[in-house]
Amino acid sequence: MNKDVTYRLGSWAASAAASDIPEDVRYEGVRSFVNWLGCAVGGAREPAVERAIAALGQFSSNAGTAVLGRAERFDAMTTALINGISSHVLDYDDTHLKTIIHPAGPVASAALGVAETTGATGDEFLTAFILGIEAECRIGNAVYPDHYDRGYHITATAGAFGAAVAVGRLLGLDAEQMTWALGISATQSSGLREVFGTMTKSFNPGRAAQNGLTAAFLAKSGFDSSRQGIEGVRGFANVLSDRQDYGEIVNDLGGRWEAKLNSYKPFACGIVIHPTIDACQQLRRELGAKVGSIASVSIDAHPLTLELTGKREPSTGLETKFSIFHSAAVALLRGDGSPTAFTDEAANDPALVALRRKVDVRVDPACHEAAATVTLTLADGSTVVRHVERAIGSRERPLTDDDLVEKFRNQSNPVLGSARVDRLLDLAWSVGNLDSVARLCQLAQAERAAELA
Amino acid sequence: MNKDVTYRLGSWAASAAASDIPEDVRYEGVRSFVNWLGCAVGGAREPAVERAIAALGQFSSNAGTAVLGRAERFDAMTTALINGISSHVLDYDDTHLKTIIHPAGPVASAALGVAETTGATGDEFLTAFILGIEAECRIGNAVYPDHYDRGYHITATAGAFGAAVAVGRLLGLDAEQMTWALGISATQSSGLREVFGTMTKSFNPGRAAQNGLTAAFLAKSGFDSSRQGIEGVRGFANVLSDRQDYGEIVNDLGGRWEAKLNSYKPFACGIVIHPTIDACQQLRRELGAKVGSIASVSIDAHPLTLELTGKREPSTGLETKFSIFHSAAVALLRGDGSPTAFTDEAANDPALVALRRKVDVRVDPACHEAAATVTLTLADGSTVVRHVERAIGSRERPLTDDDLVEKFRNQSNPVLGSARVDRLLDLAWSVGNLDSVARLCQLAQAERAAELA
Repeated sequence: MNKDVTYRLGSWAASAAASDIPEDVRYEGVRSFVNWLGCAVGGAREPAVERAIAALGQFSSNAGTAVLGRAERFDAMTTALINGISSHVLDYDDTHLKTIIHPAGPVASAALGVAETTGATGDEFLTAFILGIEAECRIGNAVYPDHYDRGYHITATAGAFGAAVAVGRLLGLDAEQMTWALGISATQSSGLREVFGTMTKSFNPGRAAQNGLTAAFLAKSGFDSSRQGIEGVRGFANVLSDRQDYGEIVNDLGGRWEAKLNSYKPFACGIVIHPTIDACQQLRRELGAKVGSIASVSIDAHPLTLELTGKREPSTGLETKFSIFHSAAVALLRGDGSPTAFTDEAANDPALVALRRKVDVRVDPACHEAAATVTLTLADGSTVVRHVERAIGSRERPLTDDDLVEKFRNQSNPVLGSARVDRLLDLAWSVGNLDSVARLCQLAQAERAAELA
Repeated sequence: MNKDVTYRLGSWAASAAASDIPEDVRYEGVRSFVNWLGCAVGGAREPAVERAIAALGQFSSNAGTAVLGRAERFDAMTTALINGISSHVLDYDDTHLKTIIHPAGPVASAALGVAETTGATGDEFLTAFILGIEAECRIGNAVYPDHYDRGYHITATAGAFGAAVAVGRLLGLDAEQMTWALGISATQSSGLREVFGTMTKSFNPGRAAQNGLTAAFLAKSGFDSSRQGIEGVRGFANVLSDRQDYGEIVNDLGGRWEAKLNSYKPFACGIVIHPTIDACQQLRRELGAKVGSIASVSIDAHPLTLELTGKREPSTGLETKFSIFHSAAVALLRGDGSPTAFTDEAANDPALVALRRKVDVRVDPACHEAAATVTLTLADGSTVVRHVERAIGSRERPLTDDDLVEKFRNQSNPVLGSARVDRLLDLAWSVGNLDSVARLCQLAQAERAAELA
């Protein structure tokens, strides 16, 4: 049974019909797309994006596809990278909580540009997007947590497969070609957690988008590969992980949907800090003016929180995203968890620096990853405690559609202007019904420099 | 000491002068380049190359660089892939025997196109090429054999670093940028042995060339990365290997030269079969007409031989490269180990199929990887034995310059014609003295389809 995992996934992904996707899964796919689009537009002016374009824009063959939130147009290969970087650079995207994969980035960044150039309908794009996420998260399930613990950035390693499936759908790959595309993705599967806290973190999902896109185009041209790219003795699951649960990949395809389990970040940082920020924001509201008299902050959290976000003295905005100390301080002092909470300015604000040094973290393996307890001791010796059982944005407390719209506007209005954002939101929510995605892509672009200024 | 491995390698690679490279190392670099160039020209018409161009040529921005052995011109990003595929597709390239890395492919494929567009001198190109190989092989040494045993195609995983260093030299990266480039290479480091026997094997060094090129261009634009991409807790060496010997990377930089240890394949297949082919060719010469009366063939070889090349019934030319059974048969019956020995025709030749089924392999851990013993039993019951202590092409029995020229001509004449090959060989041997590599690149291209026909 474990000899045809890649082929079973590939042939299902190649043959599934749009009508095979249940309505609730389809709706979550739309929410995933809306959230991704807002993140890509919102991150489009970051230095990582500017520098990637300066370095690699010269290798684009045409102006066929839209760089979201910007005026440039590149070929689908280049926009896959740039949109992938934009959508992840603020650490504000989405999360498949079982694997900590941020599913949409690699998949949508690869597929949207291809859909724009092939003239795919919104329905074809949305179907490709959902099937890509499904493949990505199932493959992630099969190797998580060992694969992640080993040091792989699972969003990138699993994301390449998702991008290949989505682009493969748009190119009309048959079962054998889709299986090759998965094999070509397997041999490119990469991405290290070592680069977290640098621009290269957001490069990872962008490169995964390109890797999957490359795989699908090669397979379409008859470039063959292993038929056991995932389960082979020297394949992805055995080489990049010490755990392999192939049932997660092939069982109940079309019945159980991982794509329905996506969640969306309310805060622009590593998801393991979210319960702490949630608790600190609640405490800020409770304390009012007394927030200025905090003598010490004690946090009880899951061990992964400190492993991933243990930077005590972040000096840049990027580094603050990996500091539970900073995150607690900025949530308490400013009530902020949005991108403005994680800037170079915030990293070096004396008041925030002073408070983050009063933060102590205790890890508790029994604590759920989406839970945290924050205890404040005030100058007068009194204490206030707030326990968050499940953070806002978790599966139990998901962002509503209205929350997503507010998040979208907060990110996109400064880049595109509110009038254009209104029209873009209308199209994004109805993506599955569009005759083509071209108009949506056009609306998501900033006008020339004059409008950007 | 193990906290600055990446930086020490990066700063050395950024600052080493051409004059720091000893003359013998430089000469081996020229031999490596000549061998690589012939392989790239010789492999340029293979289906894997055709299909990669059909799939991905559309993403090339300009016609600035030469596709070797062909008429197309693409941008440096695309030729890095295509030349990388061509140079490896016949499994006829070079080998750093300590790691089984095929060093030149990823490095030269990335660097030659960049040198062509930046107008680099031959000296600058050759220096970049040698320093790239040095970084690649040192990083390989640090993780071999565990990394390879785990299933990684080390030519690709280590090759990305080598490509980044070589391109980084041509772009003039400083120490910090070179360190970032190594970090961006680390997060892309990939390539699985699972795809051996398919077109995707040759894709691996091509993609590694692109990965390194991408890393160097990003770093040049200030796209930052980890400073510990290699040695970090979640860096390349710890995540992709269970063995890390950082002394192999940083000790005696500029003194000990791995780039001098390159060797060149006399046969167009996995190097572990070479001693067997060598022995079988010797036996064929000894037997003369009696080669038709072989009743059985018994081979004693290193265990890796059977692990890597144990395909009993190969059905395609690509698969025959991974069949010690076929390789022994074709060396005995035809005396051939060149690309013509590993074709679809040969895979299905009844005489070869009959003989390969008479081949038995016994593995012996005490056997050196470059040694083999072949015992033939003839129809009359008599036996003939040939032991090869070190195969032709090994460090102990290297190909001479004349051997390299003959190999070059055999591969390139059918593609470029002998007159052009004469001129190309002249330039290739003097690559280090050229004012620019442009003329060499031009000569290595086939004229338009008329001349190809």
